[in-house]
Amino acid sequence: MGFEYLTNVPLAQAREDYRKLLKDNGFAPRTERIPVTAACGRVTASAVYAAISAPHYAASAMDGIAVLAKDSFGATETTPVTLRPDQYLVVDTGDPIPDGCDAVIMVEDIVRTEDGSVTIHEAAAPWQHIRQIGEDICAGEMILPGHMNVSPSAIGAMIAAGVMEIEVIAHPVIGIIPTGDEIVPPTPNPAPGDILEFNGSIFSAMVKTWGADAVVYPIVPDKFDAIKAMVAKAADECDMVILNAGSSAGREDFSASVIRELGEVLYHGIAIKPGKPAILGCRGAKPILGVPGYPVSGIVVVEELLKPLVEEWCKGEREEVRTIRATLTRPVVSSLKYEEFVRVRMGYVGDKLTASPLSRGSGVVSSFMKADGMLVIPQGLEGHEAGEEVEIRLISREDKLKNTLVVIGSHDPLLDELADMMHQEDGGIYMSSAHVGSMGGIMALRRDEAHVGGCHLLDTETGGYNISFIKKYFPNGGVKLIRCVGRQQGIMVAGGNPLGIRSFADLTREGLRYVNRQKGSGTRILTDYLCQQNNIDPASIYGYDREELTHTSVATQIAAGSADAGMGIYSAAKLYDLDFIPICIEEYDLLIPDHAWDTPMVQHMLRALKSEAFKEKILALGGYTVENPGEIIPLD
Amino acid sequence: MGFEYLTNVPLAQAREDYRKLLKDNGFAPRTERIPVTAACGRVTASAVYAAISAPHYAASAMDGIAVLAKDSFGATETTPVTLRPDQYLVVDTGDPIPDGCDAVIMVEDIVRTEDGSVTIHEAAAPWQHIRQIGEDICAGEMILPGHMNVSPSAIGAMIAAGVMEIEVIAHPVIGIIPTGDEIVPPTPNPAPGDILEFNGSIFSAMVKTWGADAVVYPIVPDKFDAIKAMVAKAADECDMVILNAGSSAGREDFSASVIRELGEVLYHGIAIKPGKPAILGCRGAKPILGVPGYPVSGIVVVEELLKPLVEEWCKGEREEVRTIRATLTRPVVSSLKYEEFVRVRMGYVGDKLTASPLSRGSGVVSSFMKADGMLVIPQGLEGHEAGEEVEIRLISREDKLKNTLVVIGSHDPLLDELADMMHQEDGGIYMSSAHVGSMGGIMALRRDEAHVGGCHLLDTETGGYNISFIKKYFPNGGVKLIRCVGRQQGIMVAGGNPLGIRSFADLTREGLRYVNRQKGSGTRILTDYLCQQNNIDPASIYGYDREELTHTSVATQIAAGSADAGMGIYSAAKLYDLDFIPICIEEYDLLIPDHAWDTPMVQHMLRALKSEAFKEKILALGGYTVENPGEIIPLD
Repeated sequence: MGFEYLTNVPLAQAREDYRKLLKDNGFAPRTERIPVTAACGRVTASAVYAAISAPHYAASAMDGIAVLAKDSFGATETTPVTLRPDQYLVVDTGDPIPDGCDAVIMVEDIVRTEDGSVTIHEAAAPWQHIRQIGEDICAGEMILPGHMNVSPSAIGAMIAAGVMEIEVIAHPVIGIIPTGDEIVPPTPNPAPGDILEFNGSIFSAMVKTWGADAVVYPIVPDKFDAIKAMVAKAADECDMVILNAGSSAGREDFSASVIRELGEVLYHGIAIKPGKPAILGCRGAKPILGVPGYPVSGIVVVEELLKPLVEEWCKGEREEVRTIRATLTRPVVSSLKYEEFVRVRMGYVGDKLTASPLSRGSGVVSSFMKADGMLVIPQGLEGHEAGEEVEIRLISREDKLKNTLVVIGSHDPLLDELADMMHQEDGGIYMSSAHVGSMGGIMALRRDEAHVGGCHLLDTETGGYNISFIKKYFPNGGVKLIRCVGRQQGIMVAGGNPLGIRSFADLTREGLRYVNRQKGSGTRILTDYLCQQNNIDPASIYGYDREELTHTSVATQIAAGSADAGMGIYSAAKLYDLDFIPICIEEYDLLIPDHAWDTPMVQHMLRALKSEAFKEKILALGGYTVENPGEIIPLD
Repeated sequence: MGFEYLTNVPLAQAREDYRKLLKDNGFAPRTERIPVTAACGRVTASAVYAAISAPHYAASAMDGIAVLAKDSFGATETTPVTLRPDQYLVVDTGDPIPDGCDAVIMVEDIVRTEDGSVTIHEAAAPWQHIRQIGEDICAGEMILPGHMNVSPSAIGAMIAAGVMEIEVIAHPVIGIIPTGDEIVPPTPNPAPGDILEFNGSIFSAMVKTWGADAVVYPIVPDKFDAIKAMVAKAADECDMVILNAGSSAGREDFSASVIRELGEVLYHGIAIKPGKPAILGCRGAKPILGVPGYPVSGIVVVEELLKPLVEEWCKGEREEVRTIRATLTRPVVSSLKYEEFVRVRMGYVGDKLTASPLSRGSGVVSSFMKADGMLVIPQGLEGHEAGEEVEIRLISREDKLKNTLVVIGSHDPLLDELADMMHQEDGGIYMSSAHVGSMGGIMALRRDEAHVGGCHLLDTETGGYNISFIKKYFPNGGVKLIRCVGRQQGIMVAGGNPLGIRSFADLTREGLRYVNRQKGSGTRILTDYLCQQNNIDPASIYGYDREELTHTSVATQIAAGSADAGMGIYSAAKLYDLDFIPICIEEYDLLIPDHAWDTPMVQHMLRALKSEAFKEKILALGGYTVENPGEIIPLD
């Protein structure tokens, strides 16, 4: 079996053809009758009319007396009229107007006499100070048209108008079927080779935010009959079905044949990337969507092909698609053959909004979590250059972006802790940090793409840190260097140090597998320097070209036994209970451009840096020295 | 008792003092542990860290063979290397890398030989084509800081990182207590004087949209001990309490004393309008908010004083406050003493965005439903002039406003039917209609404030309709007149015509109570004309000054017995089973300015007007003649 063929239909056409096929097959929302009190956020199936008027009786709008206006005619300052006790009735605001009365005179406009009659000095106009029946809503009037979202005040209006139940659009039920022999239910203790089933949870959460209900079916092994039976069951029980293919592209893929046997397949293969192997199928009016197993492809397919159907069903206000123009920080290459969806992280520095493409690896779900926006590159376009202004579909809110501290540079787990502290103290402030190494941070600051850069750059001539680099890369000034922490750098090795590593020179040992940091990172510069100092040819260290982007990921490889040693900071080693051979204490500082200095985010960060809480947190991480964090380091 | 006193604290100060008092008393959110799969939209109570790395094992990124890279060293095009069967293992994408291997060679780069060994022509770099452990997320890394909203992809990331449960902020539970002797549970058959309890449903829906849960308690009569017991119970069971006062201002108000006995009252009386009698109280860390009974005052108080506390509790992303500048269509007078909240209806005509103040009557809940925005007039400001540009807090979305057909002019129920048809056919198109009479519509069109104006203006000299008015008010052209319907005008009287009305002249009869339409409406112009034709002095018709704004509301008064006769259209009479004495058939047409002609909304309306469905709907309403609706009527 495998892939007999794949179409390559443009997305817009696929979407429209799919919609048309389903409509022709009778695709339409179910409706249900619910109490008005439960209707907030629901969508009316048809127009709602008032059953009674509101107010439903003529009511006094004042405290005073109810009268027949005619009885008061002729009353003036000079010719008062006296009303007998049988010509008026005392009423409070909200009281019904008694039969035979058609006006209210305010209590402050009457003079009571001892025999119980009252004197007035002004004639009452018929219906003065009376809330008329239907002043708010008249019986029979349309309160809400069909297909409108019900707001809290609409609920009030409907109850006031005697409407107790309404017909609303039912939430569509989406059945989600995970398949695959390697797929296992979520567990904190998976065996090697097990793939945790989380697509179902992602899709289920996505469709719920669009107003649908979700049913996640049990995982089905890669067996044709089992998959077919489960899809048939889901198509019976649900309004739409997502069939999530086994994620291994090296194995057989039954999805298309299953759908074809149960109903029909309109297209297998859409001209989008990621997401190309999507299958647009149905059984009658019920869509059955074959979704690729890689989470990021799956998310794009569900978003681009299922969401329009859910919206078509739900009828209510659609989620607003907000776009914004931003400057690309890196080039993006795109295939001419596909419409490409590239997730970007965004940052506002001053008035400049930048978009940085995130990892396009189709398994990288954390990049989806970090995405602030989506760059859509049309079919037939080769991509975009760095510095180009592009249109981005916003995922994050613009006001959030404006209140996000953009940190680009050297990685340190303390940045995450700082982000956590800052956000918990002021929920309106966020931090976004990208780990591109110390030099990468300096370059980002030079391009006005960050508020803060973390750096720990060793000047191999003076033995000092950071200052000489700043003088070199910012010859005209414009930045401040802020003291952050001292960090213990060293060699991380497995717990118990099984290979007995004692010094940097030991890294060249036969059979030792080293894992390095990427070029441009402060730790790599330090490592290169140590090679030079020890007269070691880097090529003699096995794995010197194996690069990881963070201290933590180096530690991870050693902890997992896929490497024996790597340079990094003590806190990363401690996190994984690794042994640690100290090499030096380096200065990890923060670089802040003058133009960002007065932003609330930077000032908030400086306050957090100087706090006792920060010091406590950092010392608990281990391997840090903290002395006057937040102070400005003189550059001369 | 009654009002012993009232403070008049500015809103911002009240809000801040209230927050501080509650914080000092220990106000803080509860948290709860929930499965990650249920966490979408929830807010993390504290930072979430990865339990395992993702991927949790080194996996092949390709179909091919796993090898020890060192075994391949030296292989080139000219000097191939052969690997024995024990030097490699076949792997598929996603398979774990076998022990002792550290690279994958793609299936297309190997040549198999018959003895089971493979030949390669290029050396493998260590770790090539391997998805490293932690490539996505490293164990111990922070996945989400505290107080962050959980997105669908964050759920995926957490499951991938072995996190099965997280601590989130619990939804605050808001107890809502309706009180008042006249308040009855929702019913379609209330007795005169009964006030339907709908505030509880409105408040409950409001707080739910902010992320809280709501408990609406049974209605409590106006008895001190009963109210006190219920508030004590709610304060035990809930996190915050809304005490909704009896709506009659003429009765006693126990709220403040109850709260004072159970805890404390910070302020009773806030400098806002509506909403002044609000009570800011608490029992310990639990806010108890005394809310006025009039729905519109209540809504403002709950929105302005409870919402900040719910947001403070919930910690997540706050609802974005969007503001926009718009031109006021009418003056708004405001008291210097209060900060005033004025609901406005908004309309985009071309690039001009207008804001029309809605009824400020505190009982008018339908006006809240119709509001697109809120004009906040600061304390100390006397108001705004018509034509002034003001800042409006948006309630409706701006894109919705841009797709809303603004209809201002004469009222006819067919407009609601048209709105319903248009919106159900295209969910992206809305209609907003304001009933200001035919002349009001013409004036609105002259000021570029509407796309469409409904009018039926009788030229008393020629007996024709509309054309002469258009020539007079649009001497330079710029508008098109569109045929809509012919309408049967006549005198509406109670069913069975108990007073035996036969002609217009009968309206002057002694004891007959007339209800009129407002000046400027086409029906009023017709009525005035009929008086003149019949030589009747309007003052001789009792109730001639009693004005209603729509045909339906005139019919309502007659149906309810508060009036005996009124001029109006047949469909309104039919709605209430009234008797109807026909007077004439008038032309109800639509006026559309040229600049609005090409908008999608107008074109959509024209299509709807010409449809068979419209004709059927209109004929079913009764009293209409439909001939070529949607055609342009020549003005010459």
